[in-house]
Amino acid sequence: MSAFGFELLASDGAARTGVIHTPRGGIRTPAFMPVGTAATVKAMLPQSVRDTGADILLGNTYHLMLRPGAERIAQLGGLHKFMGWPRPILTDSGGFQVMSLSALRKISEEGVKFQSHIDGHAEFLSPERAMEIQRLLGSDIQMVFDECPALPATHAAIEKSMALSMRWAKRSKDAFNQQAEAEKAGRACFGIVQGGTFADLRLRSAQALCEIGFDGYAVGGLAVGEPQSAMFETLDTTVPHLPQAQPRYLMGVGKPGDIVGAVLRGIDMFDCVLPTRSGRNGQAFTREGALNLKNARFADDPAPLDPDCGCPACRQFSRAYLHHVVKSGEIIAAMLLTWHNLAHYQNLMGGLRQAIAESRLDAWAASYYAAQPRGDQF
Amino acid sequence: MSAFGFELLASDGAARTGVIHTPRGGIRTPAFMPVGTAATVKAMLPQSVRDTGADILLGNTYHLMLRPGAERIAQLGGLHKFMGWPRPILTDSGGFQVMSLSALRKISEEGVKFQSHIDGHAEFLSPERAMEIQRLLGSDIQMVFDECPALPATHAAIEKSMALSMRWAKRSKDAFNQQAEAEKAGRACFGIVQGGTFADLRLRSAQALCEIGFDGYAVGGLAVGEPQSAMFETLDTTVPHLPQAQPRYLMGVGKPGDIVGAVLRGIDMFDCVLPTRSGRNGQAFTREGALNLKNARFADDPAPLDPDCGCPACRQFSRAYLHHVVKSGEIIAAMLLTWHNLAHYQNLMGGLRQAIAESRLDAWAASYYAAQPRGDQF
Repeated sequence: MSAFGFELLASDGAARTGVIHTPRGGIRTPAFMPVGTAATVKAMLPQSVRDTGADILLGNTYHLMLRPGAERIAQLGGLHKFMGWPRPILTDSGGFQVMSLSALRKISEEGVKFQSHIDGHAEFLSPERAMEIQRLLGSDIQMVFDECPALPATHAAIEKSMALSMRWAKRSKDAFNQQAEAEKAGRACFGIVQGGTFADLRLRSAQALCEIGFDGYAVGGLAVGEPQSAMFETLDTTVPHLPQAQPRYLMGVGKPGDIVGAVLRGIDMFDCVLPTRSGRNGQAFTREGALNLKNARFADDPAPLDPDCGCPACRQFSRAYLHHVVKSGEIIAAMLLTWHNLAHYQNLMGGLRQAIAESRLDAWAASYYAAQPRGDQF
Repeated sequence: MSAFGFELLASDGAARTGVIHTPRGGIRTPAFMPVGTAATVKAMLPQSVRDTGADILLGNTYHLMLRPGAERIAQLGGLHKFMGWPRPILTDSGGFQVMSLSALRKISEEGVKFQSHIDGHAEFLSPERAMEIQRLLGSDIQMVFDECPALPATHAAIEKSMALSMRWAKRSKDAFNQQAEAEKAGRACFGIVQGGTFADLRLRSAQALCEIGFDGYAVGGLAVGEPQSAMFETLDTTVPHLPQAQPRYLMGVGKPGDIVGAVLRGIDMFDCVLPTRSGRNGQAFTREGALNLKNARFADDPAPLDPDCGCPACRQFSRAYLHHVVKSGEIIAAMLLTWHNLAHYQNLMGGLRQAIAESRLDAWAASYYAAQPRGDQF
């Protein structure tokens, strides 16, 4: 069983490209991880996800603990076998979903009591239980359990929350360390920097995590409604305090323009429901911006969705067809547009990786943003 | 452009196996045609439908005329190109859906005025318009426009309806004959026998159609709620009056056991929404009967859905996984179970074809029915 490790291949400014090595295969960075919430990337077969170029998926501890249950998945051979995805899986710790989805949350030093959003069942998550669940799932990259406060919030509130998350990070890492050697060989544990948009708190959080020591460092608590500029400013003040030798992961981000800007600031990994959720809502990402296929202007359009894309939606169908199946509420609309959006995201990541490797990221990014209709910042 | 034709390869009792030749490819008979209602076999990509073994799809005139419109599809290059299916397509004439789906129907000698079930728009279908729509779609096998009365009904009511359908059949064939030679080369027009479950009316209907002369003969007006025995009895009295040299198509049928019984009675072609609709409802067909994947007994079942099936649902996932995604309402549940059900139907047709070719259909059918839990007749 080979070890977990990050191999840095090239850098261009703050941006880097490399490979995260795991026993289940390599992850080319910068990497986009499609979200496989309930043991499925919605509307996609696993092989199709792979065909878009994905090296790794994200699985959700919160969703899987509620249904079908972590112990059940373990007994069935683990999440990879269960969902038919033999490559790396990163699992979040459930912290974010406990805050955003569950009812009647009660947070204590020990952990969080909450009610399932599915059936109201009483549940409990703590650093120890979150790591136990991720162990049972067989996750390759396990995230510490943290508290995700809503923004905006006062400095005092975010400070208190961040301090709790750092104590939970230590307990999470201790729990990970206590997993059986044979089981955790080649698996990684990532810390999560918190602190809202306060530079001093982000710095203290990063320092606390580095003191504990992790295999990778995530930036959490962003993409919760703040403007893109606030997110980029937070990255500007946070990323320099993260180790060079480990991968950096910006959680829950984001729009293509967010990803380009974050890569420019030194982020290596991303996850977001946007390509999959948009695909189910009739939206398609293209180099020239997002298209809403519901729009009547596509009803007679024989052109492919994106002539530069090699996905089945673009190779085999017209915009008129996609408009028709979106308007008709057909499942194939979700299947084709999800596939296209994931392919678009993976093509974006491939373009970023190549531009970094060839030391021309600034020019690449300038050209990228110039083609976007809404003039996102970077 | 090669011609349309039916090549009979072997027969076993009343059952036959052969190939329907069309310019877009051959159709091995007995054949099952997956239903592609709105220019999509629901929850399937066209290539996946082909991978299950389908040689031909069914498209619905009624649905396509309402959305996106036959003229629009023609302008976009025809239905095959529009939906990404280069092989043969049979289209129904809309008669059945006008009766079952639309509102405020008004039937006259000329045709049927009705309101769209989508937006209430006033529409009109006649033999001439139904054939025009099928021509615009580019259908390889075009069905005559008929009236489909609900069962049970009196002899007098069915007789009157059948007589109207026969006059419409003549007008449909005349309209087909008037299509441009270059356009209709290699395309076929099928008549539809009506007459409910009355043997004398079925006989008169079959004779009327044979007098007009068609490239194939369908049995319509069944699978509308009557018991399986009534359907089989109607086939027993109808099929002997259909020509040997043309394909015979039992419309809208059916359950696997219905298909086996109809093949034994000399039917060559079938279509039914059952495999696709059941797949979206969590039901899977197996050799031992239908399984409802919602059932809690599958929650921890590591076995494949059907160990003898080669589809992705059976090769890559457990019953426990299928149960989980069905219970969670995930799109992949519809995708996998539809794929499996279509593969199951195509495997059934392949088994029937081989048994006929090897003159052992009676033994094959006896073994088939013995494995079914509910003891269907045949």
